[in-house]
Amino acid sequence: MDTARPQVLIVGGGFGGLAAARALKHAPVDVTVLDRENYHLFQPLLYQAATAELSETDVAMSLRELLSGHRNTRVLTGEVSGVDLDRRCVTTDLGDVHYDFLVLATGAEPNYNGRDEWESRAPSPKSLAATLEIRRRVITALEIADGIENALERRLLLEFVVVGGGPTGVELAGALADGRQQLTKVFRRIEPSHVRIRLVNSQRRVLPSFPEDLSKKAAAQLERRGVILHLGRRVTAIDDAGVSLDDGSRLEAGTVIWTAGVRPTPLARSLPGEHPHGRVAVGPDLSLPGHPEVFAIGDMAHFEQNGAPLPAVSPVAMQQGRAVARFVMRTLQKRPREPFHYFDKGSMAQIGHYHAIAQIGRLHVSGIVAWFMWGVVHLYYLSGLRNRIAVMFSWTWLFLTHRRSTPIVTRTQHPLALHGRG
Amino acid sequence: MDTARPQVLIVGGGFGGLAAARALKHAPVDVTVLDRENYHLFQPLLYQAATAELSETDVAMSLRELLSGHRNTRVLTGEVSGVDLDRRCVTTDLGDVHYDFLVLATGAEPNYNGRDEWESRAPSPKSLAATLEIRRRVITALEIADGIENALERRLLLEFVVVGGGPTGVELAGALADGRQQLTKVFRRIEPSHVRIRLVNSQRRVLPSFPEDLSKKAAAQLERRGVILHLGRRVTAIDDAGVSLDDGSRLEAGTVIWTAGVRPTPLARSLPGEHPHGRVAVGPDLSLPGHPEVFAIGDMAHFEQNGAPLPAVSPVAMQQGRAVARFVMRTLQKRPREPFHYFDKGSMAQIGHYHAIAQIGRLHVSGIVAWFMWGVVHLYYLSGLRNRIAVMFSWTWLFLTHRRSTPIVTRTQHPLALHGRG
Repeated sequence: MDTARPQVLIVGGGFGGLAAARALKHAPVDVTVLDRENYHLFQPLLYQAATAELSETDVAMSLRELLSGHRNTRVLTGEVSGVDLDRRCVTTDLGDVHYDFLVLATGAEPNYNGRDEWESRAPSPKSLAATLEIRRRVITALEIADGIENALERRLLLEFVVVGGGPTGVELAGALADGRQQLTKVFRRIEPSHVRIRLVNSQRRVLPSFPEDLSKKAAAQLERRGVILHLGRRVTAIDDAGVSLDDGSRLEAGTVIWTAGVRPTPLARSLPGEHPHGRVAVGPDLSLPGHPEVFAIGDMAHFEQNGAPLPAVSPVAMQQGRAVARFVMRTLQKRPREPFHYFDKGSMAQIGHYHAIAQIGRLHVSGIVAWFMWGVVHLYYLSGLRNRIAVMFSWTWLFLTHRRSTPIVTRTQHPLALHGRG
Repeated sequence: MDTARPQVLIVGGGFGGLAAARALKHAPVDVTVLDRENYHLFQPLLYQAATAELSETDVAMSLRELLSGHRNTRVLTGEVSGVDLDRRCVTTDLGDVHYDFLVLATGAEPNYNGRDEWESRAPSPKSLAATLEIRRRVITALEIADGIENALERRLLLEFVVVGGGPTGVELAGALADGRQQLTKVFRRIEPSHVRIRLVNSQRRVLPSFPEDLSKKAAAQLERRGVILHLGRRVTAIDDAGVSLDDGSRLEAGTVIWTAGVRPTPLARSLPGEHPHGRVAVGPDLSLPGHPEVFAIGDMAHFEQNGAPLPAVSPVAMQQGRAVARFVMRTLQKRPREPFHYFDKGSMAQIGHYHAIAQIGRLHVSGIVAWFMWGVVHLYYLSGLRNRIAVMFSWTWLFLTHRRSTPIVTRTQHPLALHGRG
């Protein structure tokens, strides 16, 4: 690369970082995308990988492949240990990486509200590793339940609890409920009615970020699918045999999945300035105070619009990624940066097969029409032709055969079954 | 299941066990297929998963899905600890499983010739876990080599050694050589010529089970692809920085892959009778001496035909699986068992894209015709329509785009790079 060209370093290959890199494709700069993993993760569909509807290669795309058409862009796989704002470099396990412009887009991680010890007992479908661990636990629970004689243990293995009633929790509970029909076909001794799926949410309704009428429809759809809702309840303890709620009740469960909130990665807190909810506050041009050459975007950044912080969702990250690319170019052209403004196109969630809800401005849609829109939008935003074909194939196969693609798990014993086996 | 029906227990869901289960689909027996994993592995294509040409879900198929159309068949996921021939039951971590007929088909594992400590340094593409570990090492070596500045370490990371010159070793070396062109496209700082692939074989030619003219063609094709052959050489040591050979020479290598032979799983040795090469000797009807109700088939069984033991290849296992199903039915019908006879349809190996060798009786074929035959035969033997479509799609994509499907690895540091990073 021409070292005379400005060096733009993008940390994080998620929606924000990737959008920034793409928008800089033809800019007169050298771009480096640095991520600890070598792939971009399509997080909106991760829950389908957790429930064996999609395979991991459907939802993860090689960053190098995605950016291979960018002549000015380099991908580095490395772990960031710190940012030196004065020396303008990022310290990584590959050595120091210098920058002229820095785009921080490291996203968020599951938030266990100070109870990090719950993570191993209740993984969260936020990373690929945790997602595959959830799939392993779900399938292994069915495998063992199909094989063992001990009725008590069997019942425990077939109890699933999803904590959190946001889009991920609702989509996951719906996918598990649909999977109950499909997966029990191949587990001869498990009837769908043996499997119980519960959803716990601290708020009094599911999908609280959606309008109330859509929340109600989503809740009704979940209940129609047999999901038992525990609303207005907080989890106070998670142990080997289940979860305890703040009303003193107890839900036995072999498998617990956590979707109750995220927090920014620790890097956000190490940056100067204010940190509302752990996110780093940025200016109207998404830059750090006093550092117009350093931007923070997406889930790690705090940006207020109309008096409220923007939500930690992928459209915000993508629009901010494109905005910082524009700000970099404007700076090089010595033109002023216009303030960032988020344009909300709406939001949607799938409750299960043939049913989704969607809000687009004042328009509220639910049912099969919303479900179809949901599919089209997700295929559209999925990166790479190959993955689009693969996901479309997986979905088509599922709807034609009612068989999930990949209930393949490598053998590791289910933690619960250790005392029951051997 | 009707407990009055004879219970057929098949241990192992590989080619042999699956063929036996399939042949018993309409038999008046209850069939149980017991495997430690919940999938059938298509071993002939595992090397393509190791080299990121196929994804793991292309080569692994859920045993429950494969057998879901069999009303008389149950799949159990459990680990066998022993066989009690007198009590007619198999001890597993799920409890004891009784049988009236027992089919043992537990296959083979990599043979490190008494140097089991080499396994972690040189994994073998025989299990899915080891195959994914090989892919992780190959891709991670390229990732790190693309990022680090240290020239010595970089060179070491780009040296690959394949030990073993049988079909797996040759196919793997060829696939790595082809991958050198494809993968280095996305690793900007690695030229194909920086990557060195070596194949070590103790015999003086590759593919010694094939006729000499085909061996020569295969060797020539490997060399045309830049694979460096070290023939007539044995590995005497494997360490962090490479392998030592019996002529005193030393091959530096960041990644070493073992394909030099297999041995039967330990279960074979625990059975009564003779154990040539660790395999259990079986009678003309594939049963154990003194136990007409117990069969051993495939890689774990020793069966001589025309004065030589049958090779440890999948066609033998499949034909033996179908034969024991027939023997079970004949026994129930009180008819005699005819001796097993293996019909050799031939064998083939792919050297790389557009080139394979094949032997069908006296016919020797090589080049693009053999390569096309290779593809058709492998798609034919692949189980399940879904996997056939998926593999065909992966291959078509590869040939149209020259891009490998899934160079996705979850982050774990390459053992070699530990001192060089951070």
